[in-house]
Amino acid sequence: MNTGTTSKQTPDEKMTGQKTTGHPSPTWIETPPKDNSFRAIFKWGNPEAFKNPSPGFLRVIQRELKLSDMDFQRMQCIGNEPVSMEKPSALDPRDVEVLRDIVGEDNVSAAVFDRLKFASGKAMEDLMQLRQGRVKDICDLVVHPRNRADVEAVVGVCHDRGISVHVYGGGSSVTFGLDCPKGGVTLVMSTHMNRLIRFNETDQTITVESGMMGPAYEDLLNRAPETLGADKAYTGGHFPQSFEFSSVGGWITALGSGQASSLYGDAADIVVAQEFITPRGRVETLAYPATATGPKVNDMMKGSEGAFGVLVSVTLKVFEYLPENTRKFAFMFPDFESAVLAGRRISQGRFGMPAIFRISDAEETDVAMQMYGLEGGVLDRILKLRSLRPGRRCLVMGQAEGECGFAANVVRNVKKIARSHNGMYLTGYPMRKWYHGRFSDPYMRDALNDYGILIDTLECSTTWENLHHLHRSVRAVVKATPDTICMTHASHFYAQGTNLYFIFITRMADIKAFRTYQQSIIDAIEKAGGSLSHHHGVGRMMAPWMERHLGTAQMDALRALKTHFDPKGIMNPGSLGL
Amino acid sequence: MNTGTTSKQTPDEKMTGQKTTGHPSPTWIETPPKDNSFRAIFKWGNPEAFKNPSPGFLRVIQRELKLSDMDFQRMQCIGNEPVSMEKPSALDPRDVEVLRDIVGEDNVSAAVFDRLKFASGKAMEDLMQLRQGRVKDICDLVVHPRNRADVEAVVGVCHDRGISVHVYGGGSSVTFGLDCPKGGVTLVMSTHMNRLIRFNETDQTITVESGMMGPAYEDLLNRAPETLGADKAYTGGHFPQSFEFSSVGGWITALGSGQASSLYGDAADIVVAQEFITPRGRVETLAYPATATGPKVNDMMKGSEGAFGVLVSVTLKVFEYLPENTRKFAFMFPDFESAVLAGRRISQGRFGMPAIFRISDAEETDVAMQMYGLEGGVLDRILKLRSLRPGRRCLVMGQAEGECGFAANVVRNVKKIARSHNGMYLTGYPMRKWYHGRFSDPYMRDALNDYGILIDTLECSTTWENLHHLHRSVRAVVKATPDTICMTHASHFYAQGTNLYFIFITRMADIKAFRTYQQSIIDAIEKAGGSLSHHHGVGRMMAPWMERHLGTAQMDALRALKTHFDPKGIMNPGSLGL
Repeated sequence: MNTGTTSKQTPDEKMTGQKTTGHPSPTWIETPPKDNSFRAIFKWGNPEAFKNPSPGFLRVIQRELKLSDMDFQRMQCIGNEPVSMEKPSALDPRDVEVLRDIVGEDNVSAAVFDRLKFASGKAMEDLMQLRQGRVKDICDLVVHPRNRADVEAVVGVCHDRGISVHVYGGGSSVTFGLDCPKGGVTLVMSTHMNRLIRFNETDQTITVESGMMGPAYEDLLNRAPETLGADKAYTGGHFPQSFEFSSVGGWITALGSGQASSLYGDAADIVVAQEFITPRGRVETLAYPATATGPKVNDMMKGSEGAFGVLVSVTLKVFEYLPENTRKFAFMFPDFESAVLAGRRISQGRFGMPAIFRISDAEETDVAMQMYGLEGGVLDRILKLRSLRPGRRCLVMGQAEGECGFAANVVRNVKKIARSHNGMYLTGYPMRKWYHGRFSDPYMRDALNDYGILIDTLECSTTWENLHHLHRSVRAVVKATPDTICMTHASHFYAQGTNLYFIFITRMADIKAFRTYQQSIIDAIEKAGGSLSHHHGVGRMMAPWMERHLGTAQMDALRALKTHFDPKGIMNPGSLGL
Repeated sequence: MNTGTTSKQTPDEKMTGQKTTGHPSPTWIETPPKDNSFRAIFKWGNPEAFKNPSPGFLRVIQRELKLSDMDFQRMQCIGNEPVSMEKPSALDPRDVEVLRDIVGEDNVSAAVFDRLKFASGKAMEDLMQLRQGRVKDICDLVVHPRNRADVEAVVGVCHDRGISVHVYGGGSSVTFGLDCPKGGVTLVMSTHMNRLIRFNETDQTITVESGMMGPAYEDLLNRAPETLGADKAYTGGHFPQSFEFSSVGGWITALGSGQASSLYGDAADIVVAQEFITPRGRVETLAYPATATGPKVNDMMKGSEGAFGVLVSVTLKVFEYLPENTRKFAFMFPDFESAVLAGRRISQGRFGMPAIFRISDAEETDVAMQMYGLEGGVLDRILKLRSLRPGRRCLVMGQAEGECGFAANVVRNVKKIARSHNGMYLTGYPMRKWYHGRFSDPYMRDALNDYGILIDTLECSTTWENLHHLHRSVRAVVKATPDTICMTHASHFYAQGTNLYFIFITRMADIKAFRTYQQSIIDAIEKAGGSLSHHHGVGRMMAPWMERHLGTAQMDALRALKTHFDPKGIMNPGSLGL
């Protein structure tokens, strides 16, 4: 959803207000966080970039959450206080010295700010804790390895001394994946280990260090003729919402999915080979397009979230970059049932898939119509004339890519199926609106949080068969808290099913109450037959449900691998429920 | 390659000869094997079906192997002797009784013929041993489980008593996957455990017992409106050469690939969920289209070849069956390099893939031209006029499937790329010839073996980058044995590479000499950077190379899983090198 307005300001600019037509304008923070402040840790993305709710979105929030303009007069704690408490390191000073000797003085830090920063993710609760100046489980030492040898040496020392090891890529975990319940060391991969290792245009593969960030990775490929001396330009095909602030390694170790996954595949599908440093030694898998040499170790390392070892390098598939063939489309369907049915027919249609495909449920659609200023306008009147009414109608949009004949044929089939399920074609306009803001929504969360308004998400995958039951069950639990918005979309499509992504917005200041609320939603997902996660991973947030969800036999297999690779249990302890 | 002529006869018919134009006709065996004979075990497929080399193919063999008509006067041992030796069971009679009590009297057999039959695969050496009446490592008892509870009980007893357990699906292993080096029990899954469990048209999934055979599976789906009360007809999309005599479970546990894998994926890609009985208990994975709940146990069981447990049921993806959209094509390229380059461009072209795509190297192409009676004809003259000459030219063919616009666009792009690499369009004729005989070639092996002519295959996968080096290196080793045909094709395509499938034909009667020869080829594949297997699996044939190929770190991970699921090492011991 593109739900806000963005701006970039210099650090010199002060807090400013934005006028919203016909309403008093809330004051939004549009200055970078103070140095060394809690806000500097939790604020999303670029410190100098901001995105505030659009007037339309704000109106919806005010109406649904029953907020008056008064509620936007005074901010909650904004967390601009410095991280100044003492928090002695639990590490033996001799161990610290050994680690410092490995990576060099400049590449270790025991400062509390750094230890807190690199042990914090972007889950709603992370943000709430930091905003209130609370410090949960952090590491004892931050280490910035320069290369694989550094990682090998550090993991070796930590294994010997029983020191926990955590891995930080881009820091966008929303599952408490970076918490350090036993302290220890956090390895920051993105500082130095962000380099190209190899590009093979013949095989269409690229090997990079795991700490390379999304934009650097994609830019390298898009400009391959310049940057890599390639004949053609390429794309990585992986664009999670966190794209700008997530690392290639994080995509894989937490089993991410990009917004274009319906065509390119999920992160796991794009991986050809990996190299891990585990307490048991180095594990490198082979870069074959396919093999039948027994169970694939390459597969069993995917999604290991640092619990088996440190991913140091990865070989990925790349795809010829053909932006000129992109075709955007959007439709309005009379209801969620017909939209989902069309989505299923498209996913099972055997003509290939659009790269991006999204179905918004009725509530998300209504918010979108308000936000885009379409509600009450000409389009809205036409929609209503065609019985496409608020509270029921559903927005579907997407984008086809690939060879031009392929993309054109996908759009032709999508239109045909949409028409046959009473979808009204809306041109590519809504898709362009969404596309424009597709990475920037997380900025808006900080702005809303400043006024005590929570905006959080939980997501899962589902078979087609179970989709509506799951949707209804989870919505019922989300909405059981009064004055709550619950927007849902499906955005990753397979012939066998899709994902459901729940966005909930409510006012809640108490961390404990929020935790109870969040857990009730996870519980509802699990009970209604959704997977615990489609693409956020497990971390420590889903860990308590893992045994019930996967069953003891599957968990025992994971525990066996954990024990094999990490006999002392030093690697990201507690993550994955291991 | 379609290299023969087929016939079916009643058991009453006697050995007959087939006239081959201009040559004295060898006598081919066209009577079913005698009951309880070695031949009844090793003969491929339907006892009453035969396929003899076509006159063209025979001419090539005679010429290349320097055989005179005299060499086709007298057959080698044909193995029609009864399996009559004594081979006492090593099992404690009390254990046999317990097992018999589980499955019932009718479902166990200690007869040597049965024990030999279900411990024999279809590797060349299996056939040679059986032909000579030799009995290698066989099981002590054949058990035909009726259901999952039987398997659980049998595995439980065997785990308690330390009895080895082997699993027989269709018996088409070519990697010594069915050998029983420690005797024990062989479970025959295809006798009873071949039933439909569930069909879900909404999710396009089917759940079957692992012993269902290929044709029953495909027929069930093709006739889904009748057999399953479905709205549409479906296909499984998996057609290995062994299709008619292989089981669904075997496809998955040995990581098979079908002839249409370039579109439908390899067996591993088609699996949604699995249910195994291991000595450690039942392991059932969940049927989600995708998840991010940590490393996937579903993936780590694929390719386990019975070494972790017994696959009892499996949920697979099905695809809408659209045979009316099939489009066949074929081209002749001036050389292997240009054919491979075109194959790579097609695989990387972002327009989807043909379902079937095959590139024959020059030697295979020359054999095909002879076989189809094209050499020296009008087409041959046209080809030569266009500088498409024997010894260099390469045949490429395939078949597009899917939604009609998709299939048409694939063919349009294939033609465009082929043309730009000097491929001459040959219509769909050669593809139709190949398609017609695509499952029946294994029959011909028995006919040639009767005259001491070996025809065997080894296969591997490769990146595009390494393809030509691998092809040259392996051919050099195959051809180092004088008077040997070596035909190579690539038949499973990915953006990152393909497979190479080597067919070698030579005259060799000595088993030891053959084993040395075969091992030298496997060694050449491994040394030249091919994977040990693309789709035949590991079994015991590739096992000695596994540590060198995958490296100790990957093998240690497999050993850890083996120890977890099968702490006493009773499950298919020695397979996978575990």
